[in-house]
Amino acid sequence: MTPSAIRLLISCPDQRGIVAAVAGFIHDHGGNILDADQHTDPAQGQFFMRVLVDPEGFDLDAESFAPAWSPLARESSLRWMAHWPTRRRRMAIFVSRESHCLRDLLWRWEAGELDAEIPIVISNHGDLRRVIETRGLQFEHLPVTADSKLEQEARVLELLAEADVDLVVLARYMQILSPGFIEQYANAIINIHHSFLPAFAGARPYHQAFERGVKLIGATSHYVTSELDAGPIIAQQTTHVGHRDSIEDLKRKGRDLERVVLAEAVRHHLEDRIIVTANRTVVFD
Amino acid sequence: MTPSAIRLLISCPDQRGIVAAVAGFIHDHGGNILDADQHTDPAQGQFFMRVLVDPEGFDLDAESFAPAWSPLARESSLRWMAHWPTRRRRMAIFVSRESHCLRDLLWRWEAGELDAEIPIVISNHGDLRRVIETRGLQFEHLPVTADSKLEQEARVLELLAEADVDLVVLARYMQILSPGFIEQYANAIINIHHSFLPAFAGARPYHQAFERGVKLIGATSHYVTSELDAGPIIAQQTTHVGHRDSIEDLKRKGRDLERVVLAEAVRHHLEDRIIVTANRTVVFD
Amino acid sequence: MTPSAIRLLISCPDQRGIVAAVAGFIHDHGGNILDADQHTDPAQGQFFMRVLVDPEGFDLDAESFAPAWSPLARESSLRWMAHWPTRRRRMAIFVSRESHCLRDLLWRWEAGELDAEIPIVISNHGDLRRVIETRGLQFEHLPVTADSKLEQEARVLELLAEADVDLVVLARYMQILSPGFIEQYANAIINIHHSFLPAFAGARPYHQAFERGVKLIGATSHYVTSELDAGPIIAQQTTHVGHRDSIEDLKRKGRDLERVVLAEAVRHHLEDRIIVTANRTVVFD
Amino acid sequence: MTPSAIRLLISCPDQRGIVAAVAGFIHDHGGNILDADQHTDPAQGQFFMRVLVDPEGFDLDAESFAPAWSPLARESSLRWMAHWPTRRRRMAIFVSRESHCLRDLLWRWEAGELDAEIPIVISNHGDLRRVIETRGLQFEHLPVTADSKLEQEARVLELLAEADVDLVVLARYMQILSPGFIEQYANAIINIHHSFLPAFAGARPYHQAFERGVKLIGATSHYVTSELDAGPIIAQQTTHVGHRDSIEDLKRKGRDLERVVLAEAVRHHLEDRIIVTANRTVVFD
Repeated sequence: MTPSAIRLLISCPDQRGIVAAVAGFIHDHGGNILDADQHTDPAQGQFFMRVLVDPEGFDLDAESFAPAWSPLARESSLRWMAHWPTRRRRMAIFVSRESHCLRDLLWRWEAGELDAEIPIVISNHGDLRRVIETRGLQFEHLPVTADSKLEQEARVLELLAEADVDLVVLARYMQILSPGFIEQYANAIINIHHSFLPAFAGARPYHQAFERGVKLIGATSHYVTSELDAGPIIAQQTTHVGHRDSIEDLKRKGRDLERVVLAEAVRHHLEDRIIVTANRTVVFD
Repeated sequence: MTPSAIRLLISCPDQRGIVAAVAGFIHDHGGNILDADQHTDPAQGQFFMRVLVDPEGFDLDAESFAPAWSPLARESSLRWMAHWPTRRRRMAIFVSRESHCLRDLLWRWEAGELDAEIPIVISNHGDLRRVIETRGLQFEHLPVTADSKLEQEARVLELLAEADVDLVVLARYMQILSPGFIEQYANAIINIHHSFLPAFAGARPYHQAFERGVKLIGATSHYVTSELDAGPIIAQQTTHVGHRDSIEDLKRKGRDLERVVLAEAVRHHLEDRIIVTANRTVVFD
Repeated sequence: MTPSAIRLLISCPDQRGIVAAVAGFIHDHGGNILDADQHTDPAQGQFFMRVLVDPEGFDLDAESFAPAWSPLARESSLRWMAHWPTRRRRMAIFVSRESHCLRDLLWRWEAGELDAEIPIVISNHGDLRRVIETRGLQFEHLPVTADSKLEQEARVLELLAEADVDLVVLARYMQILSPGFIEQYANAIINIHHSFLPAFAGARPYHQAFERGVKLIGATSHYVTSELDAGPIIAQQTTHVGHRDSIEDLKRKGRDLERVVLAEAVRHHLEDRIIVTANRTVVFD
Repeated sequence: MTPSAIRLLISCPDQRGIVAAVAGFIHDHGGNILDADQHTDPAQGQFFMRVLVDPEGFDLDAESFAPAWSPLARESSLRWMAHWPTRRRRMAIFVSRESHCLRDLLWRWEAGELDAEIPIVISNHGDLRRVIETRGLQFEHLPVTADSKLEQEARVLELLAEADVDLVVLARYMQILSPGFIEQYANAIINIHHSFLPAFAGARPYHQAFERGVKLIGATSHYVTSELDAGPIIAQQTTHVGHRDSIEDLKRKGRDLERVVLAEAVRHHLEDRIIVTANRTVVFD
């Protein structure tokens, strides 16, 4: 859409004049607001804002922005993030054996839907090596056993650091990450769970759904926290099922949901549309 | 659609030749099959069938059917139900204070969508008396307290018996029925729960949904069993919500779901489209 | 949500600093922005904005606003509208014989979903008089024939003027309004058409849909213009149909769509969420 | 689901006893009905049926079936088709430059969702050769110009005949086939059109949709007939769009619809779930 815009994400306690202050700051520095969206949560007393600024004419750059902005940020108790279009996000993908989410992400990436680098794909199985390497991407096979788990996680963290990764996407990665790992990438690990959370958390959600006899199945993308399947939800969708649908049918229908819901979450993250607050998300879409 | 058809619902262990046997029986008695739908559940090894028979030419009636049919039924271990169009179902509606589901049912009933009599409407509050009585329907106000609950349920059972009721619809009725009550109307009490079950069972589901930060809310109609919100699901729908939606917005959006999902379940029940099996439903729609 | 806010709708040629100018104006007059949403259409080069201002502390009122605001408005070539919460919109409903949309609007109105007065309901049939008058509302029966059409429209315009109406809702009103009438209420007449426009414009859309064998039916709410069923679309929804659905089933399913889609359009209009541009709508929802 | 079943599709004038006659025939030949679905269209006076028969115990095979069946077929004026599981359908895919539908079909095929051989992929462009050939499939590049069109079609027909193709899938194939070509594959060419037909038939449907300002976009899969975009519809879906969506966004959202809707149609065709009647489809799903 506007890939060349500077993106500013802000959250702060709600206060009079905050929109005018932000708009004024940008204007005073020769900037033009290309798009802005905001939200006030009256229950929390919190204010959230996403602003796109045209770099043309704006007299601040990635280095000079913070010093100029910090007096306003301090005064208004802002949490904020500024993303300059010159820096492309770097996304790692973790996968196990099921390939549909991985393939879908690759394909959207090739079609230009996802604005990121993919410096590395990591798997606890070797099956998908060819899918990755034929695209000229780096594939790392790191098998995980109960015993080797923490050791392997340490190795994965090294690889991510080397690759300068800032987003990890779990594209049906069937390992539970340790709290220590998750801490390193707070609100930067996106998972796809194949149910409409909070229903059917944990293992084998389609089997659980089948047993319960629900008439809809769902998929949920969320940030990973140390509590399993309980992190902030980014996107969800459902589709109808009926008595004719076997567990295999649920899986088939579910794959279509999973692909779309994961891709939506990743795209929104890469476009800086998401703010996490109180284990929920504000998604400026 | 075909209100004048005889409806036959069958379930039995799956077996060779069952369709031919049923079709043959009907044909041998001069009957014509207007519509038929069937389903085999391979995991359970069960067979389910719904057949509509044209009464014209059929040489059996409501009385003579059972004796003629029972040899086949015994031989094939059928559970079955036959509904003759000369008998209209009798539906009681239970309601508390929120009127949207009640009003919606009444209106669909007046529009001819629901083929039933409504001999009685029962409430633990008096607020909706006028809505009912202006339509010439019977309204009974039976307040419930913790102490009076079982006594009142006994009174309600009497009223239902007097009114010859065969379906009870809980149109946002905010009382939990006792197991003894539920037993009397097995698979004949339909509830609407304002969440996508099994998520957010119990009290205040919209508050629960808001707290969890889901991106979809739902509604579920189900048969009532002695385990709260855990009975066989008949219909479900969801709709999108986002960070701008307050709890009041969830309620507003939810009301539209509840109306449609409850009405669908009631209509399917009245048209003999539902077979309960293993706490799930086969819905021939 | 925020019924007590002042609402400002703005559209203008896209230009640098417009957000800062508007936010600065409000801030300079002691106002606090409760919510703001904006949109830039790069193809048209147009900018659109909706701002909610807290009346508390704002030093302008409905009278003094325009003079204070007009220098900025002129300078930036703004088209704008300001709505003060002290003035409640006045909505007329036109209906023929089918009552579902009318009843739905009345019920949402009673439930507090629609913030408006309903000074008058007008019909070319007498059937629904009781529905209206039992609620203490004014009902006018004005039969229309080919000969009497313009005369009756003149009478209707008089009634609307007397009732100080600023929104006309066609709740399945089966008469085509003359261009002269429509001109008087530009972007202030909302119709519900029972198809997914532009498919199946004109008469009997469910019959057209059935003939074409579509697998989805839809409903469309739009502002009325002199070209039949071609005005700016406000909201649309679809639902699945199949070979088992007769035309009666399409009508039944369609009624549920029509109610929801019309109510959504009316609510968005009453909350000043809609800007019409180039026969399309910007809907800030 | 039941890949090893014999599938029987029947349509005929509605008549008494037809279900009993079909079920009796199968039973008399030692067959067991695994699944059956039927539909009566009262307006047309037509009856439609899909029956799955267990080959085990059935005393007829692909050769002996027709002679045994034909007396009943003649007597009841049946149009019918029987498909034996020993014969796998052979599907050709035609594609131009946009690869998303092609890739999606290949992937579902590899995942076992589509039960067919793919003996040939034909394109008027060479771009996707590698995608096909790396999978070991045959790719034919046959450029088309206004002058060479009929000649190339003749060549294509030869290739299809050589490859013994019985289904042609147009996976965003941007050429209009001649009536002579279509005649050869009546109800055996499936197209995906990127709009909710009949709205926006013809060229550039997303541009048309954007211009009209619709709030939903759609995709339609249909059998190809000599009238452009007017053949029997098999499946349709829609998704929401709004004023923030550019034409590029419509295309992006639309790609997700197109993939799912085309795959659904192809799967239903390959599983013999579709009967065409009066330019509409009965889809037993």
